[in-house]
Amino acid sequence: MLCWIVQTLHSLRTRTFAASFAVLAALTLTTLSAAAKQDPLPSWNDGAVKSAIVALVKETTTEGAAGYVEPADRIVVFDQDGTLWAEHPLYSQALFALDRVATLAPEHPEWKTTEPFKSVLANDFATIAKFSEKDWLEIVAATHAGMSTEQFEKIVTDWLPTSKNPVLKRPVTELVYQPMLEVLAYLRANGFNTYIVTGGGQEFVRPYADAVYGIQREQVVGSSVATKFEYKDGKAELLREPKLFFNSNYEGKPIGINLFIGKRPLIAFGNSDGDRQMLEWTTAGEGPRLGVLVLHDDATREFAYGPADGLPDTKVGTFSQSLMDEAHARKWHVISMKNDWATIFPKPAE
Amino acid sequence: MLCWIVQTLHSLRTRTFAASFAVLAALTLTTLSAAAKQDPLPSWNDGAVKSAIVALVKETTTEGAAGYVEPADRIVVFDQDGTLWAEHPLYSQALFALDRVATLAPEHPEWKTTEPFKSVLANDFATIAKFSEKDWLEIVAATHAGMSTEQFEKIVTDWLPTSKNPVLKRPVTELVYQPMLEVLAYLRANGFNTYIVTGGGQEFVRPYADAVYGIQREQVVGSSVATKFEYKDGKAELLREPKLFFNSNYEGKPIGINLFIGKRPLIAFGNSDGDRQMLEWTTAGEGPRLGVLVLHDDATREFAYGPADGLPDTKVGTFSQSLMDEAHARKWHVISMKNDWATIFPKPAE
Repeated sequence: MLCWIVQTLHSLRTRTFAASFAVLAALTLTTLSAAAKQDPLPSWNDGAVKSAIVALVKETTTEGAAGYVEPADRIVVFDQDGTLWAEHPLYSQALFALDRVATLAPEHPEWKTTEPFKSVLANDFATIAKFSEKDWLEIVAATHAGMSTEQFEKIVTDWLPTSKNPVLKRPVTELVYQPMLEVLAYLRANGFNTYIVTGGGQEFVRPYADAVYGIQREQVVGSSVATKFEYKDGKAELLREPKLFFNSNYEGKPIGINLFIGKRPLIAFGNSDGDRQMLEWTTAGEGPRLGVLVLHDDATREFAYGPADGLPDTKVGTFSQSLMDEAHARKWHVISMKNDWATIFPKPAE
Repeated sequence: MLCWIVQTLHSLRTRTFAASFAVLAALTLTTLSAAAKQDPLPSWNDGAVKSAIVALVKETTTEGAAGYVEPADRIVVFDQDGTLWAEHPLYSQALFALDRVATLAPEHPEWKTTEPFKSVLANDFATIAKFSEKDWLEIVAATHAGMSTEQFEKIVTDWLPTSKNPVLKRPVTELVYQPMLEVLAYLRANGFNTYIVTGGGQEFVRPYADAVYGIQREQVVGSSVATKFEYKDGKAELLREPKLFFNSNYEGKPIGINLFIGKRPLIAFGNSDGDRQMLEWTTAGEGPRLGVLVLHDDATREFAYGPADGLPDTKVGTFSQSLMDEAHARKWHVISMKNDWATIFPKPAE
């Protein structure tokens, strides 16, 4: 890759010197200006992934083309954590749950001496990073249930502006990937229906999905707890129960897409082993389909983890070598954050 | 009621004779023509229900009005069986299941001597009408599972044109209520998002929802069986399992609306006790809301059943007296098919 870049630069430099500087400068400015006007994905470097996205859009939206698809069936699904926004060092919803444990601690004196709450209250991140699924389920049950759906929505909405990624030091809603915001806008401008299909909580994501991604609440598919219909002061409401109803991860992703949308997507974007079955099911459809995975290989601007391609191993958003091998075998596209994305995050709000 | 009609007719006749015939005829034609142009619900007789629907639409779609609602939040939910199309003498999906038992019978010689299949194969409608929920679940498991989601879709799609309501003698897809088709079109023209929320099978309704109602597959919320992600010849597919995953009836309706749509509807249309909680939850929302129930009181043009208001009792689409009492108490609107609807079904296709 590096070799190719050096050769290209050398070739450009040679041609540059052979031309009249004034003419070239004028030409360059014109070309850049036209490209800026035409390029719907300005934060993307030119490359195979960008070309593949643009090609699929052209193929499925050009009337008369073999791959033409009616707007109602132009479905695209995006995993959220690690695909649309940062997930390291911990998923945003985990940060929410930990903050919530601290808020609720005064009502639960026993947490000071009971795991997993004890480690959370002690800010023992080394232990938190090793929490088992059972530990997290216990924390979710204590922090995400026992209130009405409306009350939970308010708790999430109030938390968001106070949230802070402990490494990147910005609110979680600012740590969205600018290139993916452009993909969302580009696809919607071409009649695509954009869905989030997250392993995270459906009712955690819904309150901000429109503001952050322009995605409506009904276009968020995610994991959910059971809810119970009940009457409070004679009025109907839904109570969130400490019991998992639907797990939207691994096999749960294609199952959830079929359940909630009922249409097989044309494109699926993911970044980890939890997205494998979603990409398999998407790309098993007839006609033009696209599977795309984000590889976090940019330790300078964001994070680097895999363990695919020799990157550091992680329990948060694991991209295994077996997923990478399958991506190559099935001709899915892999986004190198380092090479494919000219920008990672939007500029902080002034 | 009859008394009121006779009085009205008498009053009309008196006025008619008092006026010049020519002037009246001209006036009538002008009025009818203007009304046809302006009336979005021509198959509805004027009355409280029609007025309430039109008033809510005006209140929620007029910018600056106290009750104004953004288009994205204009959600309306419709039960299907008995609300959008005929459900007597049996639900369409039950007719489908019975036909399917007959089709599959050669592969199951044991059904000839095993209930509930034995009665189905003997066309013993008296016994079928008394089937318990367990009997139906057994029939559904035998007829709705064990194939991929695509295969099931093809089975339903192939069956529809062969379907026949045993009393009304027309394919089930022709037995939709013309006044409700007009409500769907009217609401959509005013920016509403129209959803079906049915106790029936989500994947049974999806294949025809667009053609019959103009409702997209992702706007169908219904009961569902569990699906299993698997590989067939290396390709991902979803297998339908003989196990109920979600029961979209009674409490399941508001739970399903919250799960699938995530927004509280402005209007809910139903017709039976299974819709009670959906109407309770809808009308418990703030701002303008509307609960509407269809009462089948027209034995001449369709069917008459309750047992509310002394109509004949039924196990199919029961409208109990307690539901009627609650409708009055909560100011829900009750459509009398006999009095509110000028037309019931669209004309048969030529």
